[in-house]
Amino acid sequence: MKKIAIIMGSDSDLPIVEKAMKMLDQFEVPYEAHVYSAHRTPEQAREFAVNAKANGFGAIIAAAGMAAHLAGAFAANTTLPVVGIPVSSGSLNGVDALYSTVQMPTGIPVATVAVNGAANAALLCVEMLAISDDVLAEKLEEYRKADTQKTLNKNSAVEEKYNH
Amino acid sequence: MKKIAIIMGSDSDLPIVEKAMKMLDQFEVPYEAHVYSAHRTPEQAREFAVNAKANGFGAIIAAAGMAAHLAGAFAANTTLPVVGIPVSSGSLNGVDALYSTVQMPTGIPVATVAVNGAANAALLCVEMLAISDDVLAEKLEEYRKADTQKTLNKNSAVEEKYNH
Amino acid sequence: MKKIAIIMGSDSDLPIVEKAMKMLDQFEVPYEAHVYSAHRTPEQAREFAVNAKANGFGAIIAAAGMAAHLAGAFAANTTLPVVGIPVSSGSLNGVDALYSTVQMPTGIPVATVAVNGAANAALLCVEMLAISDDVLAEKLEEYRKADTQKTLNKNSAVEEKYNH
Amino acid sequence: MKKIAIIMGSDSDLPIVEKAMKMLDQFEVPYEAHVYSAHRTPEQAREFAVNAKANGFGAIIAAAGMAAHLAGAFAANTTLPVVGIPVSSGSLNGVDALYSTVQMPTGIPVATVAVNGAANAALLCVEMLAISDDVLAEKLEEYRKADTQKTLNKNSAVEEKYNH
Amino acid sequence: MKKIAIIMGSDSDLPIVEKAMKMLDQFEVPYEAHVYSAHRTPEQAREFAVNAKANGFGAIIAAAGMAAHLAGAFAANTTLPVVGIPVSSGSLNGVDALYSTVQMPTGIPVATVAVNGAANAALLCVEMLAISDDVLAEKLEEYRKADTQKTLNKNSAVEEKYNH
Amino acid sequence: MKKIAIIMGSDSDLPIVEKAMKMLDQFEVPYEAHVYSAHRTPEQAREFAVNAKANGFGAIIAAAGMAAHLAGAFAANTTLPVVGIPVSSGSLNGVDALYSTVQMPTGIPVATVAVNGAANAALLCVEMLAISDDVLAEKLEEYRKADTQKTLNKNSAVEEKYNH
Amino acid sequence: MKKIAIIMGSDSDLPIVEKAMKMLDQFEVPYEAHVYSAHRTPEQAREFAVNAKANGFGAIIAAAGMAAHLAGAFAANTTLPVVGIPVSSGSLNGVDALYSTVQMPTGIPVATVAVNGAANAALLCVEMLAISDDVLAEKLEEYRKADTQKTLNKNSAVEEKYNH
Amino acid sequence: MKKIAIIMGSDSDLPIVEKAMKMLDQFEVPYEAHVYSAHRTPEQAREFAVNAKANGFGAIIAAAGMAAHLAGAFAANTTLPVVGIPVSSGSLNGVDALYSTVQMPTGIPVATVAVNGAANAALLCVEMLAISDDVLAEKLEEYRKADTQKTLNKNSAVEEKYNH
Repeated sequence: MKKIAIIMGSDSDLPIVEKAMKMLDQFEVPYEAHVYSAHRTPEQAREFAVNAKANGFGAIIAAAGMAAHLAGAFAANTTLPVVGIPVSSGSLNGVDALYSTVQMPTGIPVATVAVNGAANAALLCVEMLAISDDVLAEKLEEYRKADTQKTLNKNSAVEEKYNH
Repeated sequence: MKKIAIIMGSDSDLPIVEKAMKMLDQFEVPYEAHVYSAHRTPEQAREFAVNAKANGFGAIIAAAGMAAHLAGAFAANTTLPVVGIPVSSGSLNGVDALYSTVQMPTGIPVATVAVNGAANAALLCVEMLAISDDVLAEKLEEYRKADTQKTLNKNSAVEEKYNH
Repeated sequence: MKKIAIIMGSDSDLPIVEKAMKMLDQFEVPYEAHVYSAHRTPEQAREFAVNAKANGFGAIIAAAGMAAHLAGAFAANTTLPVVGIPVSSGSLNGVDALYSTVQMPTGIPVATVAVNGAANAALLCVEMLAISDDVLAEKLEEYRKADTQKTLNKNSAVEEKYNH
Repeated sequence: MKKIAIIMGSDSDLPIVEKAMKMLDQFEVPYEAHVYSAHRTPEQAREFAVNAKANGFGAIIAAAGMAAHLAGAFAANTTLPVVGIPVSSGSLNGVDALYSTVQMPTGIPVATVAVNGAANAALLCVEMLAISDDVLAEKLEEYRKADTQKTLNKNSAVEEKYNH
Repeated sequence: MKKIAIIMGSDSDLPIVEKAMKMLDQFEVPYEAHVYSAHRTPEQAREFAVNAKANGFGAIIAAAGMAAHLAGAFAANTTLPVVGIPVSSGSLNGVDALYSTVQMPTGIPVATVAVNGAANAALLCVEMLAISDDVLAEKLEEYRKADTQKTLNKNSAVEEKYNH
Repeated sequence: MKKIAIIMGSDSDLPIVEKAMKMLDQFEVPYEAHVYSAHRTPEQAREFAVNAKANGFGAIIAAAGMAAHLAGAFAANTTLPVVGIPVSSGSLNGVDALYSTVQMPTGIPVATVAVNGAANAALLCVEMLAISDDVLAEKLEEYRKADTQKTLNKNSAVEEKYNH
Repeated sequence: MKKIAIIMGSDSDLPIVEKAMKMLDQFEVPYEAHVYSAHRTPEQAREFAVNAKANGFGAIIAAAGMAAHLAGAFAANTTLPVVGIPVSSGSLNGVDALYSTVQMPTGIPVATVAVNGAANAALLCVEMLAISDDVLAEKLEEYRKADTQKTLNKNSAVEEKYNH
Repeated sequence: MKKIAIIMGSDSDLPIVEKAMKMLDQFEVPYEAHVYSAHRTPEQAREFAVNAKANGFGAIIAAAGMAAHLAGAFAANTTLPVVGIPVSSGSLNGVDALYSTVQMPTGIPVATVAVNGAANAALLCVEMLAISDDVLAEKLEEYRKADTQKTLNKNSAVEEKYNH
């Protein structure tokens, strides 16, 4: 199976990014985590992106805050799908990171998820791999069913407590 | 090859959405276009989403404006990857559509592109299919090279005109 | 008397939503509380909405955060009045939920109240029922008078403390 | 049948507000239109609101732009349901009117619709009246079905044109 | 000397509003503080506004949060200058109160100060009274000089600590 | 009678600022118009502000766009009341000018009106002068009555056209 | 004298960027104009940035819209000062470009000017070069004086037309 | 070597501003820190700006919050490059300070850094001085390399912990 690359702009993003790792663990999708910054390590980031496909990666997750160029910088150097996680940091509550990640020009798409939405970034990668992987597709169906059931259980608890 | 579904919330979104069709045409990726509204045809939208995988679709593009629930409504009813295009309409310049599309809860991701970013939505789907399709992956590389060349040509024209 | 349905997208919305329940209790308006998610339990949400009128409900309150599709999803499946409560959660302070709830397309209205405005959502439902229920209308007048009196009492306290 | 009051803050709001009138005409719900300003005719606005219930109104629609106090001013003087239409005017694209209309304090709800969403404001009033009016409720179902059909027709046109 | 009326929409605004009282105390400008709500006590608010001039007031300060109609409601019922203080409360950080206070229609001005800017609201009233009161004008000059001096003292402390 | 100074940051603000002149003409309040920029003519702006009181001015109106420092720069150099008009220019729709004008620090108030709200800026100055000028106060009452009547006339026209 | 590099992300930015060229022409500061995109020609952009200092450049101006990574990408690959011009394009009025340009992480500054503020970007570069170039410093003083004079002339025209 | 002036609008900005001092200390660039307010000490601020060049300063850093006029006021009175730090204070999270600092009119540029971005403001000044100072330019290269290495070290730590 192809691997997922999880890139964070700073190790301070780890509490957010770990949710992506947990999700991939749950689906037994292999991944690698790295700290590369579009601004502080542009060379290494570029090199990783350029070689990602040849190195067996199927998709790239990039998480960054503020003027979040990381996902775009990866997308500029690979034709693998790149998923961007805008991270909320600094004063502007992540709106800066959201706009910097999602408003990409034609030709270089970034698949953007919610601010701090690391779990969904991973899930999106699983969905991409599952297009051609029936076992993974099946696991997604099961995950979804379990997610639905969790909400139904919460519903039962609320109904029991509040409805008479 | 798996098909791409292009769903628009209203036929007034066609000028935006046609850019996605042209991009898929360029890559010879098959697609179907439909008008389904999360609010006006919830049944038909749901039915399409639930059966999309069985009907040979590999990914779904959903374009909608204002309180843009369309991509989320599709994502809620399939585990195929769903790409959301926030469409700028009404007074709020598409910020409403952007927030309504990207801020999805954990478990139900939507891969969001820029406001009105239909061409990139298509490109993202091509990238997803290309994970397991080397011919398509090759075409993406060529597209990227051509895109780079176009910018270099513009650079030459600007250099010629302005630098002495 | 017709019942009010109080739907929340997640049980984490309970601290907000309980203010709606208390308000309905105060007016002795019957209600049911449920946890349904537009994204995690779309089937159950739809089914509830479709049958709400037949099941004796007069109006529906839906509370959700972020890309808050819940109220719109209910409105799409019933012609009962739907009141939407945008819940503040995540980084964007509820602006995402507000836009996702209020910016509905023509044909499918959602009566939106303030961010986290659960008490007013309930009050709005009482006002709707009171259009054809004189006893309830009378209670609303009394509630309003009491509310006015509370402010007048606060005024007296402030006047006493600060004016000489 | 109870009447709907349609209040606009200025006759410059007429192009927006007329969409509400047309919708009520379609449902044969009686209405009256008035120009009252929370700021320029506070006395007349107040008087209208205070007497609206006694004068046979079942709900009030108030449309205003900028620091849109009109809906709130009516809500402060009646316990009838008040529906607020934020009108886009001036530089801020209606965000000012939206916040001024929807962010009401506990005790005085305003049912807010989308910026310029006059048709939905009327529809919401019809839904409120229909809680206790089966004929109107039936008309709403028919309207919804027709609305769905219109979208399905658009879908057919799009499918025919774009899918081969 | 004419009095200043300090109106707050709720006694929860007192921590903000007390800064206005302290400023007026400092200038020995007489004032009265009241709790009136544009929404909960519209009658009393209106009555106060209508009679304010006859009752010896020279200007009115109105502080309110969220859909902050208070200053506008006073301005609608008097031709005395009304100073609006947008109060930060709820999820939207006072942007809602700022827009609701400042974006008044032609004919009914509200002199708006910064979010939570109660001290400046008072100072503005002093400046207004000082147009025709030389003693007060002199006090304003002294206050300004003292304010300047305070900053110069801070400058000296910073210079001493950091510059060598 | 004291004069009003109308300062604009650029002569491109004239179409906005002329509304202030017309309003002052209507009240027969004397004024002077000047173009001073906080950034391009800081010396002249400062000099004007410092001498404004001695030169017979009672209040100052300052209109500017973008990083609108003009009103604040005048307020820093006089203790006369300064009214700020945020002018909409450039890409940000006047939100930049609004924040730059209204968010003044404690000690240096600017009475801010709506974006482009020049007529109200003038009206506010008239209200300030009228605190100690009964003739002007009377004119304000008449202006208000006429303004009310205009709205009532519009109401009659709308009632005649739409209500049957 | 060191040259200024003027980089634009697309030749569609030329109408904005030409204002920078004109300003540099006015100061007789040599420059080169290029079209490089952080996303479409990342290699060429990087190469230019890495060699800019050795190639005789003293500062770099980078203009881009939407998710404007261009200035940041240059700053990441040089220690020359980089001036960023956020360009207004697409639906979000340049707020996206502003946030993407200015919110840089510690270590990699971008000197950001106003949205579309190309003339000021050039002026800033002239100011930087003038730190160690007295002739250029003198020209700046003259430019400023002329700018002041232009405003004073506008003032004279306005005074003549409006003050009597 | 020319000195850097670090001006803060209030000593409450010291925790932010000290990061600029530390950065300049690291590069052994001389600086002076001062508290001057555009509003509370306009005279002293102006005088400092007017004489800054003659007093041996090469660039000016100005940090201020809310309606942050400080950087613009300095830029209006000198042709030295002025770097603006928008400081987050008050309710609006620094968006007010950002807009007030960056949206300068043509002719008077302010080089704006991120909200609270004091370290980068200092770095930008070092870069400006380094245009004509090879020793400083060399130090910048070393700083950048060290910054890159720090990120690479974080990467190693993350790789070791998470990749197997």
